[in-house]
Amino acid sequence: MTQPEPHFLSHPFDDDKLKEECGVFGVIGVTDAANFVALGLHALQHRGQEAGGIVAHDPEKGFNSAHRFGYVRDNFTKASLMETLPGPLAIGHVRYSTAGKKAAVIRDIQPFFGEFSMGGAAIAHNGNLTNAEALRRELIEHGAIFQSGSDSECIIHLMARSFQKTHADRIADALRRCEGAFSVVAMTRTKLIGVRDPLGVRPLVLGRIGDNGYVLSSETCGLDIIGAHFVREIEPGEMVVIQDGKIESARPFHQASPRFCIFEHVYFSRPDSIIGGRSVYETRRQIGVELAREAPVEADLVCPVPDSGTPAAIGFSQESGIPFALGITRNQYMGRTFIEPTEQIRNMGVRLKLNVNKSLVKGKRVILVDDSVVRGTTSRKIKEMILDAGAAEVHFRIASPPTAWPCFYGVDTPDRNKLLAAKMTEDEMRDWIGVDSLKFISLDGLYRAAGEANGRNNACPQYCDACFSGEYPVVPSDQIEKGFEMKTQEAAE
Amino acid sequence: MTQPEPHFLSHPFDDDKLKEECGVFGVIGVTDAANFVALGLHALQHRGQEAGGIVAHDPEKGFNSAHRFGYVRDNFTKASLMETLPGPLAIGHVRYSTAGKKAAVIRDIQPFFGEFSMGGAAIAHNGNLTNAEALRRELIEHGAIFQSGSDSECIIHLMARSFQKTHADRIADALRRCEGAFSVVAMTRTKLIGVRDPLGVRPLVLGRIGDNGYVLSSETCGLDIIGAHFVREIEPGEMVVIQDGKIESARPFHQASPRFCIFEHVYFSRPDSIIGGRSVYETRRQIGVELAREAPVEADLVCPVPDSGTPAAIGFSQESGIPFALGITRNQYMGRTFIEPTEQIRNMGVRLKLNVNKSLVKGKRVILVDDSVVRGTTSRKIKEMILDAGAAEVHFRIASPPTAWPCFYGVDTPDRNKLLAAKMTEDEMRDWIGVDSLKFISLDGLYRAAGEANGRNNACPQYCDACFSGEYPVVPSDQIEKGFEMKTQEAAE
Amino acid sequence: MTQPEPHFLSHPFDDDKLKEECGVFGVIGVTDAANFVALGLHALQHRGQEAGGIVAHDPEKGFNSAHRFGYVRDNFTKASLMETLPGPLAIGHVRYSTAGKKAAVIRDIQPFFGEFSMGGAAIAHNGNLTNAEALRRELIEHGAIFQSGSDSECIIHLMARSFQKTHADRIADALRRCEGAFSVVAMTRTKLIGVRDPLGVRPLVLGRIGDNGYVLSSETCGLDIIGAHFVREIEPGEMVVIQDGKIESARPFHQASPRFCIFEHVYFSRPDSIIGGRSVYETRRQIGVELAREAPVEADLVCPVPDSGTPAAIGFSQESGIPFALGITRNQYMGRTFIEPTEQIRNMGVRLKLNVNKSLVKGKRVILVDDSVVRGTTSRKIKEMILDAGAAEVHFRIASPPTAWPCFYGVDTPDRNKLLAAKMTEDEMRDWIGVDSLKFISLDGLYRAAGEANGRNNACPQYCDACFSGEYPVVPSDQIEKGFEMKTQEAAE
Amino acid sequence: MTQPEPHFLSHPFDDDKLKEECGVFGVIGVTDAANFVALGLHALQHRGQEAGGIVAHDPEKGFNSAHRFGYVRDNFTKASLMETLPGPLAIGHVRYSTAGKKAAVIRDIQPFFGEFSMGGAAIAHNGNLTNAEALRRELIEHGAIFQSGSDSECIIHLMARSFQKTHADRIADALRRCEGAFSVVAMTRTKLIGVRDPLGVRPLVLGRIGDNGYVLSSETCGLDIIGAHFVREIEPGEMVVIQDGKIESARPFHQASPRFCIFEHVYFSRPDSIIGGRSVYETRRQIGVELAREAPVEADLVCPVPDSGTPAAIGFSQESGIPFALGITRNQYMGRTFIEPTEQIRNMGVRLKLNVNKSLVKGKRVILVDDSVVRGTTSRKIKEMILDAGAAEVHFRIASPPTAWPCFYGVDTPDRNKLLAAKMTEDEMRDWIGVDSLKFISLDGLYRAAGEANGRNNACPQYCDACFSGEYPVVPSDQIEKGFEMKTQEAAE
Repeated sequence: MTQPEPHFLSHPFDDDKLKEECGVFGVIGVTDAANFVALGLHALQHRGQEAGGIVAHDPEKGFNSAHRFGYVRDNFTKASLMETLPGPLAIGHVRYSTAGKKAAVIRDIQPFFGEFSMGGAAIAHNGNLTNAEALRRELIEHGAIFQSGSDSECIIHLMARSFQKTHADRIADALRRCEGAFSVVAMTRTKLIGVRDPLGVRPLVLGRIGDNGYVLSSETCGLDIIGAHFVREIEPGEMVVIQDGKIESARPFHQASPRFCIFEHVYFSRPDSIIGGRSVYETRRQIGVELAREAPVEADLVCPVPDSGTPAAIGFSQESGIPFALGITRNQYMGRTFIEPTEQIRNMGVRLKLNVNKSLVKGKRVILVDDSVVRGTTSRKIKEMILDAGAAEVHFRIASPPTAWPCFYGVDTPDRNKLLAAKMTEDEMRDWIGVDSLKFISLDGLYRAAGEANGRNNACPQYCDACFSGEYPVVPSDQIEKGFEMKTQEAAE
Repeated sequence: MTQPEPHFLSHPFDDDKLKEECGVFGVIGVTDAANFVALGLHALQHRGQEAGGIVAHDPEKGFNSAHRFGYVRDNFTKASLMETLPGPLAIGHVRYSTAGKKAAVIRDIQPFFGEFSMGGAAIAHNGNLTNAEALRRELIEHGAIFQSGSDSECIIHLMARSFQKTHADRIADALRRCEGAFSVVAMTRTKLIGVRDPLGVRPLVLGRIGDNGYVLSSETCGLDIIGAHFVREIEPGEMVVIQDGKIESARPFHQASPRFCIFEHVYFSRPDSIIGGRSVYETRRQIGVELAREAPVEADLVCPVPDSGTPAAIGFSQESGIPFALGITRNQYMGRTFIEPTEQIRNMGVRLKLNVNKSLVKGKRVILVDDSVVRGTTSRKIKEMILDAGAAEVHFRIASPPTAWPCFYGVDTPDRNKLLAAKMTEDEMRDWIGVDSLKFISLDGLYRAAGEANGRNNACPQYCDACFSGEYPVVPSDQIEKGFEMKTQEAAE
Repeated sequence: MTQPEPHFLSHPFDDDKLKEECGVFGVIGVTDAANFVALGLHALQHRGQEAGGIVAHDPEKGFNSAHRFGYVRDNFTKASLMETLPGPLAIGHVRYSTAGKKAAVIRDIQPFFGEFSMGGAAIAHNGNLTNAEALRRELIEHGAIFQSGSDSECIIHLMARSFQKTHADRIADALRRCEGAFSVVAMTRTKLIGVRDPLGVRPLVLGRIGDNGYVLSSETCGLDIIGAHFVREIEPGEMVVIQDGKIESARPFHQASPRFCIFEHVYFSRPDSIIGGRSVYETRRQIGVELAREAPVEADLVCPVPDSGTPAAIGFSQESGIPFALGITRNQYMGRTFIEPTEQIRNMGVRLKLNVNKSLVKGKRVILVDDSVVRGTTSRKIKEMILDAGAAEVHFRIASPPTAWPCFYGVDTPDRNKLLAAKMTEDEMRDWIGVDSLKFISLDGLYRAAGEANGRNNACPQYCDACFSGEYPVVPSDQIEKGFEMKTQEAAE
Repeated sequence: MTQPEPHFLSHPFDDDKLKEECGVFGVIGVTDAANFVALGLHALQHRGQEAGGIVAHDPEKGFNSAHRFGYVRDNFTKASLMETLPGPLAIGHVRYSTAGKKAAVIRDIQPFFGEFSMGGAAIAHNGNLTNAEALRRELIEHGAIFQSGSDSECIIHLMARSFQKTHADRIADALRRCEGAFSVVAMTRTKLIGVRDPLGVRPLVLGRIGDNGYVLSSETCGLDIIGAHFVREIEPGEMVVIQDGKIESARPFHQASPRFCIFEHVYFSRPDSIIGGRSVYETRRQIGVELAREAPVEADLVCPVPDSGTPAAIGFSQESGIPFALGITRNQYMGRTFIEPTEQIRNMGVRLKLNVNKSLVKGKRVILVDDSVVRGTTSRKIKEMILDAGAAEVHFRIASPPTAWPCFYGVDTPDRNKLLAAKMTEDEMRDWIGVDSLKFISLDGLYRAAGEANGRNNACPQYCDACFSGEYPVVPSDQIEKGFEMKTQEAAE
């Protein structure tokens, strides 16, 4: 059972900054809103698997909440729990699993709740505040008691110190102090509120359900699962306040040129979600098409690295005419890392998750299509498995440019010195992984696949692509204070 | 905001008793202090059975904590948990089960922790602040975000807003704003701190362990279990700060005449604890002696209502010469309330916990000695059991005066209109319970048993006896705001 | 939480012979019989704390069962579980905790169930079969597949091989092959069956409930808790078959002179139970009276070793005139052994359970009354605690004769060489324990206290007292095969 | 007798599929064999998700076992559990979830263990005995006590009654009494034993690991995960006995013409397993090729019903030239059935698992390729989802012939009257599902795809295809006794 281990709770006051990729969801105007939130979070589970939380409000029973480690399906499916979350208004959050980091605690699970003089409010945040540490220090100096290690808690404390009269105005006040990426879903006793940062780095969409209900979700797949209709995206820099079936829109921030995260297209979002009017699946397939044009190679089979490489592999096969085949099988029961109990079988690693279809690849020249290369260690193991199975040649094609810079806007990335592409050229990476060829899609190719027919506008890029380009649209001030070195002008040129 | 907990939590024993709300414990200067705290809390478990928490500090691993519902023995005995609480300094808290109240949440379990600009600190509080609601409102208006429903959290927020430079000074600052009863144990990275309110309503004692170690405990039985030596009681209004084997004592409050809770002698404290130089067991036995003098009756047997009536029953037997006998047997496996699964057997109630020794009481005139009468419902059931078993006469003797007023200083009492003695005279109570006679010890008799040879000094009572007398040494301002009516001068006379 | 540890299940096919002390209970003719069985087992929890099981039969839903590690109160109180055990007929079993032995498995928990050609039947057994190993070997040779390590499973396999036509006749057939002690409660789809071995070593009583219901219970305290009326004891060698409100009695065994276990009076049974028309409490108090006559000593206080020494201490005090006092306090939250997490505090041992009331015993000559001495290690620790507290003299008085022989009839005793009384004289024991005096009650004194005015009839003892006398009423054949040496005729004389 | 289990256990995925009932695995001659068994069972998890068990033998610590509900990854990954299963020899079993049947009990989880006069033995069985009920009745009449509801337990009891001297001979004796399908893995203290029934209905393969180790596994994917080398398949009717690195082969049964289950190719086996020298993936792709030839249709997209329809959809696309696309996305966190908590959202059903990629299918003519149609209910729901998303036409192509007969050889199939193809013609099914066209592959086409170039040899079919043809190679005698009607000769013609 994917149940939280009690010892996860052992380090409660840890102030380690977690920069998680998350999913947020909220519903207003339906019976038992928390049930819908549970379903929505289930659909957004790919955005965060460590933990989930729901806060609901009922006119009679007030605010109620539940925060749990583990999958939505294992927690928020029990009638005994869901009955404790009554009411027509609820929000929820799923949180990324911080494997390898310090154990997280239940106090870190969002939504966060605060009791204000005008009543309670809860918020759920997807993204990362790049000035959170400075804000935190400042707030503590002025008497704030932090309960979690999460930077998102700053928002609640900033709200508590605002002089505004309404929750919505206090949220706007608080977020104006925040730098970085934030898609926020919040609730009061009567209102559902959604906000996106001025650059719109993380997604947030609006849907309609039933006669009088509205939904906010990180992705459209969260609307589909509950049968809600897609209305529109919340715009970069917009705040919507929904009450009694009516929506008010405001623009609390200085205007900026939008920079949506292009990695949402490459990997984060679900393939059946629609972003900016484009199917994520189709964008990924198109990356494969572009890749086949940019980096063709003679071969017998195009195999995806399951499952995220599949759409690009289909596109590559269709453009190149080389047959598509499932040369690598994923073990579908591999929910969490299988703990190898003894030294003897410790180095099986990737075999627990993947198996090569030997009779298929034996003697063949194989193109492997993967979504990205981070540390490169998995690529090496997959290459070994394929060669062990008797492949004649192995060619890697990567559906994203080299990942050479860490993300500070809500994605958990290794330190820069752990990123393979930060240390090696493409040829060096090819040799280190040990394959016959290795090619990444170009940044322009990626932009074309994402719908920008003319590629990247270098003067004013249409997306945030900092992880590839090193061009950070918001200065990561906390990181710089800790010694992170941004790309110099010369290097950029 | 209420959060459901997966565990079933009912309060463990008799719901017709007054309940002590908490026990506090702290150790400094030993290896693995948390282990000692676990043992100390185990010895103080009678002061609170719902939940327990420990915070420990290690110079290398910083602050760590664990908060758990359930008994100390079921949680803080696992090596896997205790290993997460390293270091030479730790404090802990056990908390009473609030059956019938809103479901408790893990965030309500103490010790509470706060990160301050000069470093973290944790506090554990036994008692109750009579102005907590006013403080809470004020703090929220000034930007405090409360995480628990516990009034004790006010202390942390008051500390956060203090301008003092040291934790100890901030604790003093905070507690000077607090009214009511508080015995506080606190810790910083290097210091163990103990404070008692000016009246010294709740107990707190100091012990010594090993070469260099010190202990703070609600009662002396917490010292005994770890082999610590009793040094002295922390005095009413005193604050001690212990560091590096040295103790500094301060007096941060205005001086007042002490008013220790007399009910600690009657029921709350463990019989093997020593308070004010007196054995609690001996005081209780002496109450029985006084009671036999004040309210003699001809009978065949003196039986205690187990287990809290036993010492007084022994005293009554010794003074009266009537044989002592265990006419009622307690089921020792009755840890928590047995949930009667069907209507059919719902009204067995007290039988699950107690059974009458039929062949012993049959045809006998029985004196039952109990510590107190609260609602009176249990007394009625016990009377029925004894009569069913064939007793010829039943005489109740109660080791405390009639409980006619609620306690606001850290004891869970029913509303005044639920207290039998607030609604009836002694004779009416006798008839309602349905026994041949019913007598309570007098207030003076109780004071004599507690060592005051001349009884109660009505001009300046030596103890807090508000639950009997209605004379509240600290004005319960929150309660008055909610409509509680104090005894008028005339009524008092 | 007293929850079974999963690793208890790790050694399933262990054939270690467990000789447990157990409790059995059965009800017929009531609605939801399993609820009554749960209550009955709760009252019998002192006879076995490791595990419990219930089998119920419903005309529509057939046989259902639940077997759980842990206390009755923690398992058989959940509506979700009890609802799975419907029907008017149910039996149950509680089993002793085999601390220090190999981990038990869920398959060892009774009642055992067998599907026979004439329908299913379940049995619960209190006692021990002294020829179980021989039976087991024989059954395996003839094709039986054992599922548990429990000897009681032999009964089911013997039943399966019987040629009798009814379950009751098969039970009789099976038990005629069994030697040793057995009080058995069994059920078929329509009948509740009770059997006691010819010597009647273990208790079994019959009660009546409601208009048409009957109850079988190890002790009368199991009747009291559900409001059933005591009818009579099942007689040694008797089998009762209860169906449709009617009882048939049979005598399937050769007649023998009864030998009820005298240790049930001394320690096993609950003080509020009635055995052979005598209150167990009263017998124990009388042991104290006899002891005061046999082994008087000048002292200031008589203190029981809690809780089992209490009735004898009361008797001792009453006979001697020396005041009774609770000099040792038991921690009532000490449900299971507290695991001392570190070496440092490992040797606190008994302090976790007991604490001496220092101010009471200081400077006093103290008589400690305990029910028995087995290994003697606990006696030594208690002596140390009392001396540490400043007692002037310590005198042990033991409410049973020296335990010098192991029991093979259903009680878990250490090997003979671990029994202090098997290795030392009374004086040697006194010196080893380190007290001023140590006296055991004589065997005759014990018999007198148990109602035999003339003491023990050595020609034909009225009780089984093998643990004291070494005279085994049934030859322990399995043990002799394994090398156990019985007392020689000379030694006996 | 049914025993409730605390865990909720529903079957994990689609309830409109046929379910393989088990997987078996065994290893000898390695350190800590149980770890390898855990990995092997993890690779075989698709054959049974309800529960798993492992028995291991260590020369010093004897037999140990663990049986658990839930996934292998959630149980047999904990060091604390695996340490209890030491030794160089172990076998294991995974079992299918019997949703809708009586609650399963832990006693039903294999391997089963029996203590015989020549020592213990454990067996794990994949398949189903068609005369199990008759055997069970007979065994009970002769004194066997069954502990589980599993027919496989008959094998242990038959062994116990055999007069043979060795375990292996007793297994052969027992299996000669058994009719139906069985692939058995067994172990004694020193031997690993594998047996396949004379028809070889279920798979069983032999592998080699390390210098001296051997492996038995239901499928080759179980060898791959532990790095074992495939040696050969155990032949139909063969028994192998492995000890000290040596293999002995025997033929204990009458010879028969093999009839391997063709549905293993269609659905049950993992796509990366190799059966009869053929890649399962490749056979499935080839089914798609045959299907495109037999039942072509003009369309814009070929979409698999995930995940089992994918290889056939790839083959269909490749043969037809119609682009392959992932039009339906599976929620990868859908491990087990999500319990819809309220009526309101109960009819979302399949949406929790699947979502249509709207922008992809809108306005398109879509071919959906699925592996089989059982009840047809899922097909209807998927059709609705596709039409809701705006598809212009929907054409179903099924990678197996109509499933018109239940399987009695180890696969969980609905009763015949629940099978859509037993009640309707192809055209009626098309209309009932509501699609533009519906075509199944022919039986000959399926045989061709499975490597039989000339299709099915009707005189002597190469495979067991009873679920399609109604021709049962072993008479299902238990079922016939219960009223099942086999196809009459006329109907067959």
